Amino acid sequence: MSYITMTKEQLQKEYALQTARFDACKAQNLKLNMARGKPGADQLDLISDMLGCFVDPKECFTDGIDARNYGELAGLPVARAYWADVLGCKPAQTFLGGSSSLTLMHDVIAKAFSHGLLHSERPWCKEETVKFLCPSPGYDRHFRITEFFGAELITVPMTATGPNMDVVEELVKDPQVKGIWCVPKYSNPDGIIYSDDTIRRFANLKPAAPDFTIMWDNAYCVHEFDGEFVPFADIISLCEEAGNPDMVFEFASTSKITFPGAGISVMASSEANIAYLTKMFGVQMISHDKINQLRHVKYLKNKTHTLEIMKKHASVLGPKFRVVATVLDKEIAPCGFASWNAPKGGYFVSLNTMEGTATRALALCEEAGVVMTPAGATFPYGKEPADSNIRIAPSLPPVAELEKAMEVFCICLKIAALEKLLK
Amino acid sequence: MSYITMTKEQLQKEYALQTARFDACKAQNLKLNMARGKPGADQLDLISDMLGCFVDPKECFTDGIDARNYGELAGLPVARAYWADVLGCKPAQTFLGGSSSLTLMHDVIAKAFSHGLLHSERPWCKEETVKFLCPSPGYDRHFRITEFFGAELITVPMTATGPNMDVVEELVKDPQVKGIWCVPKYSNPDGIIYSDDTIRRFANLKPAAPDFTIMWDNAYCVHEFDGEFVPFADIISLCEEAGNPDMVFEFASTSKITFPGAGISVMASSEANIAYLTKMFGVQMISHDKINQLRHVKYLKNKTHTLEIMKKHASVLGPKFRVVATVLDKEIAPCGFASWNAPKGGYFVSLNTMEGTATRALALCEEAGVVMTPAGATFPYGKEPADSNIRIAPSLPPVAELEKAMEVFCICLKIAALEKLLK
Repeated sequence: MSYITMTKEQLQKEYALQTARFDACKAQNLKLNMARGKPGADQLDLISDMLGCFVDPKECFTDGIDARNYGELAGLPVARAYWADVLGCKPAQTFLGGSSSLTLMHDVIAKAFSHGLLHSERPWCKEETVKFLCPSPGYDRHFRITEFFGAELITVPMTATGPNMDVVEELVKDPQVKGIWCVPKYSNPDGIIYSDDTIRRFANLKPAAPDFTIMWDNAYCVHEFDGEFVPFADIISLCEEAGNPDMVFEFASTSKITFPGAGISVMASSEANIAYLTKMFGVQMISHDKINQLRHVKYLKNKTHTLEIMKKHASVLGPKFRVVATVLDKEIAPCGFASWNAPKGGYFVSLNTMEGTATRALALCEEAGVVMTPAGATFPYGKEPADSNIRIAPSLPPVAELEKAMEVFCICLKIAALEKLLK
Repeated sequence: MSYITMTKEQLQKEYALQTARFDACKAQNLKLNMARGKPGADQLDLISDMLGCFVDPKECFTDGIDARNYGELAGLPVARAYWADVLGCKPAQTFLGGSSSLTLMHDVIAKAFSHGLLHSERPWCKEETVKFLCPSPGYDRHFRITEFFGAELITVPMTATGPNMDVVEELVKDPQVKGIWCVPKYSNPDGIIYSDDTIRRFANLKPAAPDFTIMWDNAYCVHEFDGEFVPFADIISLCEEAGNPDMVFEFASTSKITFPGAGISVMASSEANIAYLTKMFGVQMISHDKINQLRHVKYLKNKTHTLEIMKKHASVLGPKFRVVATVLDKEIAPCGFASWNAPKGGYFVSLNTMEGTATRALALCEEAGVVMTPAGATFPYGKEPADSNIRIAPSLPPVAELEKAMEVFCICLKIAALEKLLK
């Protein structure tokens, strides 16, 4: 029965019931974690044969290059070709990073602030104000990079088809607005795939700032856990066709394809942007880990084979996301005070609970031994005015633990909602 | 016979002889490279069994950590312990980087400019002028990092015991002087080991800038190619004892122990500095490649075993450096216009030819197909007023090629010197 239509007496009865359940959970001294998009050990086991896929030194040579030695700042040609295949761009438009695409994103923003990007009139640190658009709910680590360098973060509401483009098109008329963070496929945390129309409008933006930059984090580009691979557009050629060839930087990595934190990452953009940044990267490094690049190309081969490997991940991730859906449907749907998405890929479920109760619900979770992403984390500065959005990250715990964690989580959502209704 | 005492006639005869030799070399269409401190393939072959040293997923677990997954921003405890053993510091004073210590150095300087270091009164980009001391001849990539961020580079002369400390002690009285680049063991390119007295004076500096920073690049800390390992002092505890606990950042990597560009790197400093920077690094990454950290610990084990592996490298590098010494002794020593060092470790021989002739000599080398580090590269802004210093990097070519390259190089030195004497 919906909490919204309950009498005070019914709410009190329900509150007694849920607090009793909460106390029982607490007594179990649980230690469960749904805070971060970490793959579980079960998932990593499926691809750990990768450790043995490249042991023969004779295989170190590719395109006349000894992958063991210094050189090839932008990455091995075979690694650049691999990413071009996955992303649908050209090899010359790629630049290989280390084990973290987040570092590449940080470095692009860092260089924009210290030196400026290709079309900057001056380094961003010399601008009076730099504003950066943050579709929210979004990824806290994105927002934090721009916050770190002193940008003013502007919240842009998310819709079912991506960021609200009416708002974006209006905001980019301000020359102080220098860029936007995007996760175009299975957005973090909403799991939304940007619609074709949204993507077209992004490519056709007419920003006032000549160096306006779309940070296109295609983190989940091949990360379906339910159903077939969903093709995505090549944002680089779309921007080029729209007369904005240098407006976008795309990012991806194998962090959730092979080993998180020990994979390879890529930045893709116009050749002019890649040339501009490669020169700057030449100051800080000689080359990234080409042995690991070659190891990955040997193991992942190409896009087709990568998609086969993603099916393995799906076999572990799919059941976990089904647990989330099942428990929410059973525990929360009848109560009528929350809504959530049901993505077919990515790493998160985004839930909006009763306004003003997210922080309290997560404090209760912590009390009962269930660690969640902090309330507000999905909004700029870690603060959501409505105090409603919660990111659920079900990938790490085994299914049995996850069922328990989700039960505790739902009880906490209910108690927080009941406390508010009974006030 | 020394060129200096030759008559004009003798010089002309010698010039005719050397140009004939030069023309004969040119006719061979050589393509030889002594430009960079790249290990040769022969050297890499000796440690390529490393590729197969970690293939069993069951070995991914260490100290309760799954090295395959995200986490451990500062590095695996076993990797931090490894570097503490090599450098003689404490594990808590280490922070693991990716495959390049140069990137760690860049990042420290980048953060000093964008945000300031632990004792900075403001970010360096907000200072009117930032001056950085560059002992020269030195490493061009060091100088370039500080140049990139707009620092004014101040040349400090090198002596046989390290940078001229009288000059350093005088210069640090200027509060605009924010730091110094150092390669304390087998300095690049001189191959000098800083004396105990030099190191003690570094630790006891009393700089005017509260955030003065010694960039202590211990790149060649275990890199003897001739004779036994030479112990080195722990600069971190020396600075601490001198009341300057946060004044130094030490750097090292396995680039010339395992695979160049696919190794692991480390930054070591006071725990306060490590804590301060770890927080900033948390903005740009989740963790570096822990699989590669574990692979290195499995292969290198500890300092003792690392020194055994360095003996293997010495077996290849030693003969190459002996070729350099032999050819210089034979071709150049009798002519009396140049001097050079004879290091027992590191990757370079530093040669000072007749003033005003280094650029010309290297242009001749290029004409004859021998690529060298550009003249002036070892000085700030790539410009040496005396036009005399040349860095020889003999590690890459096989011995037979190296003999040829050194012969060409000596002929070019002679011609450039003769041209000047005959002018």
